[in-house]
Amino acid sequence: MKVLLCTFLLIQSVFLQAEDGHNLWLRAKSSSPVNVICSKKSATIDIARQELQQGWLGKAEASVVLTVKPDKTIKGDGFKLTLNGVQANNDLGILYGVYELLRRQHTGEPVKEMICNPSYEARVLDHWDNPDGSIERGYAGRSIFWRKGENSLVVTDNDKILWKEYARANSSVGINGAVLNNVNASPLMLSKEYLGRVKAIAEILRQYGIKTYLSIKFSSPSLIGGLKTSDPLSPEVIKWWKDKVQEIYSMIPDFGGFLVKASSEGQPGPQDYGRTHADGANMMADALKPFGGIVMWRAFVYSPDDPDRAKQAYAEFMPLDGQFRDNVIIQVKNGPVDFQPREPFSPLFGAMKKTSVMPELQITQEYLGQSIHLVFLGAMWEECLKSDTYQDGPGSTVARCTDGSIYAQKHTAIAGVSNIGLDTNWCGHPFAQANWYAFGRLAWDNKLTSEQIADEWIKLTFYESPSGNTGSADFSADWTGNFLNPVKKMMLESREATVNYMMPLGLHHIFAGDHHYGPGPWYAPKGLRSDWTPPYYHKADTIGIGFDRTSTGSNAVSQYHEPLNSQFSDLKTCPEIYLLWFHHLPWDYKLQNGRTLWDEICYHYDTGVKQVREFQKVWDKVQPYVDQERFALVQRKLRSQSKNAQVWKDACLLYFQKFSRKPIPYELERPVNDLNDLIKNDMRRP
Amino acid sequence: MKVLLCTFLLIQSVFLQAEDGHNLWLRAKSSSPVNVICSKKSATIDIARQELQQGWLGKAEASVVLTVKPDKTIKGDGFKLTLNGVQANNDLGILYGVYELLRRQHTGEPVKEMICNPSYEARVLDHWDNPDGSIERGYAGRSIFWRKGENSLVVTDNDKILWKEYARANSSVGINGAVLNNVNASPLMLSKEYLGRVKAIAEILRQYGIKTYLSIKFSSPSLIGGLKTSDPLSPEVIKWWKDKVQEIYSMIPDFGGFLVKASSEGQPGPQDYGRTHADGANMMADALKPFGGIVMWRAFVYSPDDPDRAKQAYAEFMPLDGQFRDNVIIQVKNGPVDFQPREPFSPLFGAMKKTSVMPELQITQEYLGQSIHLVFLGAMWEECLKSDTYQDGPGSTVARCTDGSIYAQKHTAIAGVSNIGLDTNWCGHPFAQANWYAFGRLAWDNKLTSEQIADEWIKLTFYESPSGNTGSADFSADWTGNFLNPVKKMMLESREATVNYMMPLGLHHIFAGDHHYGPGPWYAPKGLRSDWTPPYYHKADTIGIGFDRTSTGSNAVSQYHEPLNSQFSDLKTCPEIYLLWFHHLPWDYKLQNGRTLWDEICYHYDTGVKQVREFQKVWDKVQPYVDQERFALVQRKLRSQSKNAQVWKDACLLYFQKFSRKPIPYELERPVNDLNDLIKNDMRRP
Repeated sequence: MKVLLCTFLLIQSVFLQAEDGHNLWLRAKSSSPVNVICSKKSATIDIARQELQQGWLGKAEASVVLTVKPDKTIKGDGFKLTLNGVQANNDLGILYGVYELLRRQHTGEPVKEMICNPSYEARVLDHWDNPDGSIERGYAGRSIFWRKGENSLVVTDNDKILWKEYARANSSVGINGAVLNNVNASPLMLSKEYLGRVKAIAEILRQYGIKTYLSIKFSSPSLIGGLKTSDPLSPEVIKWWKDKVQEIYSMIPDFGGFLVKASSEGQPGPQDYGRTHADGANMMADALKPFGGIVMWRAFVYSPDDPDRAKQAYAEFMPLDGQFRDNVIIQVKNGPVDFQPREPFSPLFGAMKKTSVMPELQITQEYLGQSIHLVFLGAMWEECLKSDTYQDGPGSTVARCTDGSIYAQKHTAIAGVSNIGLDTNWCGHPFAQANWYAFGRLAWDNKLTSEQIADEWIKLTFYESPSGNTGSADFSADWTGNFLNPVKKMMLESREATVNYMMPLGLHHIFAGDHHYGPGPWYAPKGLRSDWTPPYYHKADTIGIGFDRTSTGSNAVSQYHEPLNSQFSDLKTCPEIYLLWFHHLPWDYKLQNGRTLWDEICYHYDTGVKQVREFQKVWDKVQPYVDQERFALVQRKLRSQSKNAQVWKDACLLYFQKFSRKPIPYELERPVNDLNDLIKNDMRRP
Repeated sequence: MKVLLCTFLLIQSVFLQAEDGHNLWLRAKSSSPVNVICSKKSATIDIARQELQQGWLGKAEASVVLTVKPDKTIKGDGFKLTLNGVQANNDLGILYGVYELLRRQHTGEPVKEMICNPSYEARVLDHWDNPDGSIERGYAGRSIFWRKGENSLVVTDNDKILWKEYARANSSVGINGAVLNNVNASPLMLSKEYLGRVKAIAEILRQYGIKTYLSIKFSSPSLIGGLKTSDPLSPEVIKWWKDKVQEIYSMIPDFGGFLVKASSEGQPGPQDYGRTHADGANMMADALKPFGGIVMWRAFVYSPDDPDRAKQAYAEFMPLDGQFRDNVIIQVKNGPVDFQPREPFSPLFGAMKKTSVMPELQITQEYLGQSIHLVFLGAMWEECLKSDTYQDGPGSTVARCTDGSIYAQKHTAIAGVSNIGLDTNWCGHPFAQANWYAFGRLAWDNKLTSEQIADEWIKLTFYESPSGNTGSADFSADWTGNFLNPVKKMMLESREATVNYMMPLGLHHIFAGDHHYGPGPWYAPKGLRSDWTPPYYHKADTIGIGFDRTSTGSNAVSQYHEPLNSQFSDLKTCPEIYLLWFHHLPWDYKLQNGRTLWDEICYHYDTGVKQVREFQKVWDKVQPYVDQERFALVQRKLRSQSKNAQVWKDACLLYFQKFSRKPIPYELERPVNDLNDLIKNDMRRP
């Protein structure tokens, strides 16, 4: 009890810090007392009680009844809000119900009787954290789970406090799983020593209903098991994994399972032994099955030989449909290439009808300005989840194809690649917190609009009442008109702005090598495989630009169900946002607005730059409503974003102009960066 | 003859190069023959003849008569254009007349009977070139006169070709003097070895009527003469200089004289020996007098002790008025501080009534964007030369106070600090050539308008007829409307644009330390004398900004003749362009347009940035009329200028905002650079 109290005080002290962003969307504090009535006791129920007492904004001295009672209308860890409390099938459902109740109080939404069931069973954050504490594609400091050097595996009180804060934040938005290490996995992670630390993490996370998962290296049996092979059909390999799984569950009884990147980007996998993805995944699934664990097997595969990388995941996995165990889920990135600012949805969604499929979204902004650009990804994910695959007739959205609405999936899941690190504000950019929040909210309810999510997040994250209190059911017209609305508008426009200044009209993957921050449409070092170079994707030449994926080209369109195949193929019906994704078009091709393709490209880049400049104005104007610390940080980052948007515009227009040989329309601002300088410096990150 | 022919062919080959800018404003080539009739023969007359034959655009087979004949209406090396030729007092006058005739043909101005007399007797380029080949404040490559290393004093054929081209360009605009080395002079320059090279240079320049001068180090008698002192009143020092002068004239009979920076910025001078500037200057003047040489003695003096540097030249020199020999000319920078983008004229002009005074202008753009920014300085010099000092009643302009119109000066002169180096195009920026050109033209005729000079220069430098010929009396409406007019407008606006984005409303000297390219209003390293730091000049505090030079402050206004003293002192009459030069004003001081001072400062910076962006558009639009080489170079430099203008705006607004504590008006674009980054990098030059 003493330890608990001590921990609690320590956490409190963190809460009382200045507005450094560490408290995320959980800033609300109550001054009105509440009576919490619950007959059950557990760590999770205790947390629910404490959250109510800390955050209650309802009537003073009101009573809230928490009832754990099976109800068939409530699914899994869903819950029912009643007029006087929360009912759920289990303790975690109670906690989620309490968070929903408090969120409604803090955002001014009515609290009414309703059942809330999660869209997905597993709502997982993937951490690309390495055992040495670095994070692949991490832009907010080093790993919160791992650290470098001596004592790297010793668990400290500070570790526990941080993990608890992390767990609370996740739980408050419904995230119930965490993969603790990078998909490019170190075999070390399965060693006894590392598993000891996993156990310690799991013990903290468990109270908040979060299961731990691990990424594994497929060749672990040979690398750390002393076996001569890692062939998934080899009996000794099968046994090795069985034993390893047993060992894990003996330490972590609620362990979630494995995430596997295999036979992908140089990672070992079943194909090294002439086996299929199904052979590999099923072997592991069999080992996990007795304990209720799952395998999340990534479909992110491509080879240097295929002329169209966008086709490969479909080509490799479709033939295996029906061959996977029911506790295998194929994890598919939202688009067919790689977390670009805009891609059409991956054609695997809805196509694999006899296999569980889960979406993988990227919260960390690898290709969207990292922790420098303000980009709200809710809009992008909403676009993907609501895309109609037509695989089971109209209305077969990506969301419904993966959440069990259409296909009988034993397990449903969704994953988001985390943007979390040791930075005080967790995500580097204060607005990057909104992407963590949005992922959780969409994972819980994939029908939410990004507008609603942004609205909630802004209220929870920025509202401060005139008396200095945060959280309120009552937002003044002044605050709503001068802060909430303009900031929400900015967030909702931000992803389209990024598409405009980075790669409009279906352009994709024209980043500088390695860092993926700035532009590099020219980037093609000698000897590098061509599918790692931008010219492979934009295919600019003196005639035109774009990737022909129609039947005259790679025919990737054929992977889409009708009417999409026809729609994308036909220039009259292909959405302009995907134009150069599916078509190679001449520079003077006329768009619907009458502009030539070249001019339209110029206008998009210029518009993107202007949008960011407008964001800067929006932010400067809201200064009176934001604490100085977060105001200054966002202001500074917007300046960098504005500068970088200009770099994007200049780089892409000047580079493509070498092919188009046409002037940038004179109504538009001229580039201020020199192409040769940009090329010379393209490997430098800010 | 063989050597001459060879040299001529070499020069010709230079002429035939692509448009790399090496030919400056001398691109015109004739295809129509002309008969040149002249009874006299000399190197200079030969050049005149050759120029006519190369550049004649008049009637084919016309006869041009060159007549050397004394005429009292013609002054010095002036000339008379007649309907069939040129008449002058001497050969150089003939050459100048031929250049005038050809310029009129090439720019389409009528050739009419007229007398052209120069405004100043000595029209001198000051080269701040060091014996090791480096150039102080040079931005166009190394010295054309000096080079580093072994054989640095050997005169090669290439040297001679270059010096001849240089002399021709100078002569074509009326420049008749060149100081071959830096005012921060090395004593080496007076050694026999170096004088040998000076002699070789003088021999080339002489044919084009250009006299050579040298900057001398005041302490040369002790440094290289073996004397114990350099006291100007010491007989052995007097003798040393007499002997040195004699030695020089024995080698260079038409040597022009000395330029002296003494007791200034750490340079030795008469004050080291308790003597006055007059003592020092007169001693040298006496040595030079027998040979017709002059002393140009700089008034650029200030000490760290005075609270207002702007007052010091006046304070030190006015008491000496009347004490200088008649072959001493006091060389005064246009403004009282130091070649800033805008200063009021130096109060010494017109004030020293019994002393010859000459203006020193700076062609090299030390404080105006160096060879990166397009800034036409004609406008700035016109502003200065036409400033009314009122010293001899209304109309006592700086021009008239220095050219002998008002005061009886034995010698008149004007100097420009050269922007010339070894760069193929001489000046780094193609448009920087216009400043060399403008200096020469104004030195010849200080009543010319910058508009006319720009018009001439553009025609001479950029016109190409449809048949590929350059130079024409007949410019198409297309070329005039689409090239000449917009480019001229850009040039004429460019200096004001620079003032806007660098230091509007009378701000001055807020440059980064040392390099003087970017902004550094914050620059004030500990221990540095305060008059070398920007805060000394802008005096920003939470109340306001500006240097109080009225009677409540340093009272520098009192150095100006009435009505200027009153006009500058009174806020109602002080021109807004000098507002913060003369006044410290509160941030919310209301300007005539109703804006507060802070807002107006913001608007000026923003306007400057927008002006440069507009220049970029202007230039991009004229692409069809310019060769690719110069087009691309100017385009690239304009991009850098645009970026740097943004840096200036951001740096100054963000820095001053720390004092004003007011928002940048929301109509204006926000800064994109971060103040801390700018401060961190302020010592870096591009």
